Amino acid sequence: MGLELYLDLLSQPCRAIYIFAKKNRIAFELRTVDLRKGQHLSDAFAQVNPLQKVPVLKDGDFILTESVAILLYLARKYKVPDHWYPQDLQACARVDEYLAWQHTALRRNCLRALWHKVMLPVFLGEPVSPEMLATTLAELDMALQVLEGKFLQDKAFLTGSHISLADLVAITELMHPVGAGCQVFKGRPKLAAWRQRVEAAVGEVLFQEAHEVILKAKDSQPADPTLKQKMLPKVLAMIQ
Amino acid sequence: MGLELYLDLLSQPCRAIYIFAKKNRIAFELRTVDLRKGQHLSDAFAQVNPLQKVPVLKDGDFILTESVAILLYLARKYKVPDHWYPQDLQACARVDEYLAWQHTALRRNCLRALWHKVMLPVFLGEPVSPEMLATTLAELDMALQVLEGKFLQDKAFLTGSHISLADLVAITELMHPVGAGCQVFKGRPKLAAWRQRVEAAVGEVLFQEAHEVILKAKDSQPADPTLKQKMLPKVLAMIQ
Ligand SMILES: N[C@@H](CCC(=O)N[C@@H](CS)C(=O)NCC(=O)O)C(=O)O
Ligand SMILES: N[C@@H](CCC(=O)N[C@@H](CS)C(=O)NCC(=O)O)C(=O)O
Repeated sequence: MGLELYLDLLSQPCRAIYIFAKKNRIAFELRTVDLRKGQHLSDAFAQVNPLQKVPVLKDGDFILTESVAILLYLARKYKVPDHWYPQDLQACARVDEYLAWQHTALRRNCLRALWHKVMLPVFLGEPVSPEMLATTLAELDMALQVLEGKFLQDKAFLTGSHISLADLVAITELMHPVGAGCQVFKGRPKLAAWRQRVEAAVGEVLFQEAHEVILKAKDSQPADPTLKQKMLPKVLAMIQ
Repeated sequence: MGLELYLDLLSQPCRAIYIFAKKNRIAFELRTVDLRKGQHLSDAFAQVNPLQKVPVLKDGDFILTESVAILLYLARKYKVPDHWYPQDLQACARVDEYLAWQHTALRRNCLRALWHKVMLPVFLGEPVSPEMLATTLAELDMALQVLEGKFLQDKAFLTGSHISLADLVAITELMHPVGAGCQVFKGRPKLAAWRQRVEAAVGEVLFQEAHEVILKAKDSQPADPTLKQKMLPKVLAMIQ
């Protein structure tokens, strides 16, 4: 069996991996794990990832979790163009720095923005107070300032003059609040111009294809009560 | 100017970097940033890291934040023994997987255990309710189960039969709750035996030296009111 990727394009790290593999013409079997149907909680998927999360890579009998590790594995195994994860010591360190920073910063804030604004109320039927939502959006705003001020600065891409894994992880992250209806790029001309460059580098068609699901997140059907009960504690743990 | 490392050994990622550099005989100037004195909030340090956090690496005019990125930079630049961050594709992916997982899992829980049990009440004079502390310790327990069940399993080290960056990042993390008086290794013979192996691989003397500060965290002097006021919102953001 060749390369298999267990993904749901509703998930931001899954989108990064999907775009990266497609863009670099890495052949893989897509195993869709529909989070909104609770497929990640099935016994079959627990055999693949006992932690019940996507994304997962399966390459023969080698199973790998964690999106950052999966991206690095693909970059190395398939010898993709250097700009994605440069050999140069300092350039590579800049990508690593971004990939480490985002876990507790942009990831957390974009995830919370989506769930607080859309997924909790619409999909799980759990109201979120206006105060809570305001705090979430204020924290997102602060993370965006760091993204622009510390990482992007006046460069074309987050870590230099070419697109890298950092840009891919960042843009797929930002499309989470965009999917929730947040005006992430409004009043941020530098970030908006960077988004255009990333989309162009990835290719519009692939970018759209990867983001179709999240851009329709607002139309999610409410979960049935049994699924809601199973998912809620896990969701709350994920977005804390 | 050669390599400079801005560290406070009270901080778990700083300890990982300190041990890694010392163990591999990487020469550096130690720039101590005393967090409990608020030195990370000084104007001088903001020149080095506007995000006002340790650790920071300065190599000539190259400044790098984020402990994981710093460890990888040191491993590559100083060509340390392969086992720390293996060339082998799958072995390397296992280290990456751990380094990605820990950010939102073990890091968060060990940090909260230390602050909720010791630093908030003793250093910042902020009481933590018994319910909050109980939740924190229960979450730590779940993360320890994953550390043992998914990562360590029956291997000698977290990612294979030799010590890697993953073990170093994990052990320095676990010494946070140990410093807070939590019995992390009690009733966990596998983790306890792993700890002995990591300590032996690092060397007892270096291990003790790096952990002297955290093992005395309970004796922290209360912060003065001005410093408390400056630090509290940042601490709450860090441990959320
Ligand atoms: N740090 C992991 C996070 C994985 C993760 O949280 N995946 C989410 C989707 S974005 C998931 O599967 N959540 C289901 C759950 O937690 O119940 C990564 O970057 O791969
Ligand atoms: N993800 C960063 C975290 C850095 C971090 O949070 N450092 C803490 C000490 S462990 C700090 O400097 N905190 C001061 C503050 O947030 O005010 C890393 O791994 O280097």
